[in-house]
Amino acid sequence: MCLAPYERLHTPRSVYIPPVTNPEVELIHRTRFSAAHRLENRSLSEAENRSLYGPCYGDHGHDFHLEVCVRGSVDPRSGMVVDLVDLMRVVRERVYEPCDHKHLNRDVPFLEGTITTVENVALALWAELAEGLAGLGSARLTRLRLWEGPDCAVELDAERGTAP
Amino acid sequence: MCLAPYERLHTPRSVYIPPVTNPEVELIHRTRFSAAHRLENRSLSEAENRSLYGPCYGDHGHDFHLEVCVRGSVDPRSGMVVDLVDLMRVVRERVYEPCDHKHLNRDVPFLEGTITTVENVALALWAELAEGLAGLGSARLTRLRLWEGPDCAVELDAERGTAP
Amino acid sequence: MCLAPYERLHTPRSVYIPPVTNPEVELIHRTRFSAAHRLENRSLSEAENRSLYGPCYGDHGHDFHLEVCVRGSVDPRSGMVVDLVDLMRVVRERVYEPCDHKHLNRDVPFLEGTITTVENVALALWAELAEGLAGLGSARLTRLRLWEGPDCAVELDAERGTAP
Amino acid sequence: MCLAPYERLHTPRSVYIPPVTNPEVELIHRTRFSAAHRLENRSLSEAENRSLYGPCYGDHGHDFHLEVCVRGSVDPRSGMVVDLVDLMRVVRERVYEPCDHKHLNRDVPFLEGTITTVENVALALWAELAEGLAGLGSARLTRLRLWEGPDCAVELDAERGTAP
Amino acid sequence: MCLAPYERLHTPRSVYIPPVTNPEVELIHRTRFSAAHRLENRSLSEAENRSLYGPCYGDHGHDFHLEVCVRGSVDPRSGMVVDLVDLMRVVRERVYEPCDHKHLNRDVPFLEGTITTVENVALALWAELAEGLAGLGSARLTRLRLWEGPDCAVELDAERGTAP
Amino acid sequence: MCLAPYERLHTPRSVYIPPVTNPEVELIHRTRFSAAHRLENRSLSEAENRSLYGPCYGDHGHDFHLEVCVRGSVDPRSGMVVDLVDLMRVVRERVYEPCDHKHLNRDVPFLEGTITTVENVALALWAELAEGLAGLGSARLTRLRLWEGPDCAVELDAERGTAP
Repeated sequence: MCLAPYERLHTPRSVYIPPVTNPEVELIHRTRFSAAHRLENRSLSEAENRSLYGPCYGDHGHDFHLEVCVRGSVDPRSGMVVDLVDLMRVVRERVYEPCDHKHLNRDVPFLEGTITTVENVALALWAELAEGLAGLGSARLTRLRLWEGPDCAVELDAERGTAP
Repeated sequence: MCLAPYERLHTPRSVYIPPVTNPEVELIHRTRFSAAHRLENRSLSEAENRSLYGPCYGDHGHDFHLEVCVRGSVDPRSGMVVDLVDLMRVVRERVYEPCDHKHLNRDVPFLEGTITTVENVALALWAELAEGLAGLGSARLTRLRLWEGPDCAVELDAERGTAP
Repeated sequence: MCLAPYERLHTPRSVYIPPVTNPEVELIHRTRFSAAHRLENRSLSEAENRSLYGPCYGDHGHDFHLEVCVRGSVDPRSGMVVDLVDLMRVVRERVYEPCDHKHLNRDVPFLEGTITTVENVALALWAELAEGLAGLGSARLTRLRLWEGPDCAVELDAERGTAP
Repeated sequence: MCLAPYERLHTPRSVYIPPVTNPEVELIHRTRFSAAHRLENRSLSEAENRSLYGPCYGDHGHDFHLEVCVRGSVDPRSGMVVDLVDLMRVVRERVYEPCDHKHLNRDVPFLEGTITTVENVALALWAELAEGLAGLGSARLTRLRLWEGPDCAVELDAERGTAP
Repeated sequence: MCLAPYERLHTPRSVYIPPVTNPEVELIHRTRFSAAHRLENRSLSEAENRSLYGPCYGDHGHDFHLEVCVRGSVDPRSGMVVDLVDLMRVVRERVYEPCDHKHLNRDVPFLEGTITTVENVALALWAELAEGLAGLGSARLTRLRLWEGPDCAVELDAERGTAP
Repeated sequence: MCLAPYERLHTPRSVYIPPVTNPEVELIHRTRFSAAHRLENRSLSEAENRSLYGPCYGDHGHDFHLEVCVRGSVDPRSGMVVDLVDLMRVVRERVYEPCDHKHLNRDVPFLEGTITTVENVALALWAELAEGLAGLGSARLTRLRLWEGPDCAVELDAERGTAP
């Protein structure tokens, strides 16, 4: 319908999409982990950190909610992009086990030396997940949204140019 | 603001958007239906299905949540892209009535012969909705997100090239 | 990973993304306000309004939920795109204070003369927020989603060509 | 189990419940309505109202969520306390139709002259629902919780002595 | 405060609570399972079932959400009523494993012959959980709330006399 | 009152409620705070703590959601049990400010020396809130529910005998 070349000519504002016979879809899996963190730039003084981060300079924590989105073609045999069990296993190994019930500043190897803002944690999780998902057939990581509590999130989207 | 050609030169990572005088917007409507299903590829043996789908090979069910997104220009007379009542009527006729309190493998004509994974159900709902929405003025289906329970969804997006 | 030129050649359906060394990310902040409104086109008769808007022609109200999304590079010193406190201040000054516990048809200067559909309110909030965010370093407004109750929302997205 | 007289002797803090052979259960139904209101005591001056109610003295609105709880014995023939369809019909006739897309101070007969605080609206809805439910076999209204937005609610519970 | 005898005299409507030195608390654990079911009374004809249950007579399904509440004294050594891990294990063994990804009418031994209304399923889960929790120290099952989708639940509460 | 055997005979399953002319209602306010904590009994060895608390022995954190319930008569002048602004002020001063963006084991005076299980934190918040609410007219604290993430909560209820 909205993919017809004729129609596209009249809606130049959207990205041109050629007709697709074997469409890809995006599969989204949500999970969460409970972690402590504090915002601190170790190259700054305590006063500078306090002025930069305010109350976030102190230890606190969140129930982080993570949405991982993978894109791929639907396998006609299974009707799946990827077996959700495999996707869940990667998320568990790469995110849940290293981060849940941990202090993000001290306990997570891949966050070593990182300022644990939601921006930086999301970028680090992207790298972990992209590596872990490399084995899952044609499915590839396209989006990641990390919620730090219910009111603040960071989204990375390879197709919007926001990804490592 | 972020549409100025000058700025675009410095942010080549995002899609170029020419200035827009009469903008289109996307209107999202959420609804849900309660259905049973089981994952089964009838061309496979029971053992193959069991190994492929595990517990999903058995009858189970979900409260499916559906987000339908249509795109169009805002009509200056009504201030609407489309009358939400009309959109809701299409979703009711095309999705809710055929699927709610049904078994997706047996009771839904447009899923006949389909492996009822969330991927395939989403693709089938797209076709139904695109046809039903064809009559609604300039509004066209651009995105569809189907949640199978709270932790797993499939998204189709014509502008990302993920649509039938 | 999915940014490799080779891979792109084989997935022409998605937007080409050149490798990025200093990625931008999108930061999303959710807030809400409680407001009354009614749908009325003052250039129409009462009968025409009633037929066009049905029950929405009468005063009613909602808890509107707003998701504001800004895009920018992560500042290596702070690990942030923008200080969430600054973003929250702009949202408070530009949206919450003018709209919360108000009647959108009568009490909000920047909605004067507007038919207060969720489409038009979202477009007006975009203009307010874009202006308010202009001062916040490199961060720029890229998306806005306004929920009018839990089942209906409008999304504006500069990168999809849906923005004023 | 925890109803055994012996055990009760050792937990005097809870209400004594004689053994029950045909237990009653409580059935809870959630619904919502979108309405405008303002807090005003007409016997007070504008200045007194403003000082008493602050911003709530002005028109605003909410998506009110209502939880209606009825108690009764489970009918062995149907396995139900009451047919949910009947309960939903009463809630629709007594609450949804009079209140949805209305101004609670002006449009709802049973709120005529009431200060439309969530306390008073809940008490008025109790009276409406208790009357409407009178016809539904043995089921009787035992609890009502009315949420005015996500952070504030009033609960009435006949068994706690908080009901008209 | 509100336990003082003097105050009680003036609030006769609430249950008298003697001063408590080692208080009990209630611990609530939420979980969910995805299951199919249909409402059918096998002693009735198809026509009678259809008229009694309408669309619920057909196979459909839900994401059931379960809140299990246990009451007990806080152990000074652990600061816990019961180890949440033990409570979760009982819920997993008694509810999740027998019910998740199952058809409640056919696959669950303890529902054999039951009309699988949310009322009856809740009563059956109570019996299972009460037995499973018998081993967990002083903690005893006091409440159970089972949500069948987001808008309908049944609550059992031993202290309100609604329990098997 | 509702414990008298005589009354039980006439309403065996539910508590007898005498007619009420000026009913009390319960007002519920929800808020949340983000905090870090770890479970540790300082009188035990590291090995004992690790075996008792498992991963909870390490620093982690949550978005705690708190529901505070006060009971009182509805003031005919205001239509309120208590001014929500006053209730919110007490919750802010007694809970939010001491606990938000803090480490519960180290930063909160009234938790000094407490094992910060959700049971003990709830009991400590009750004492703080009961004291803070003492000034709010006739309203008194009757219930408190503290959620430690979305799947685990503790409820205290003076009328169920679960309160300090």
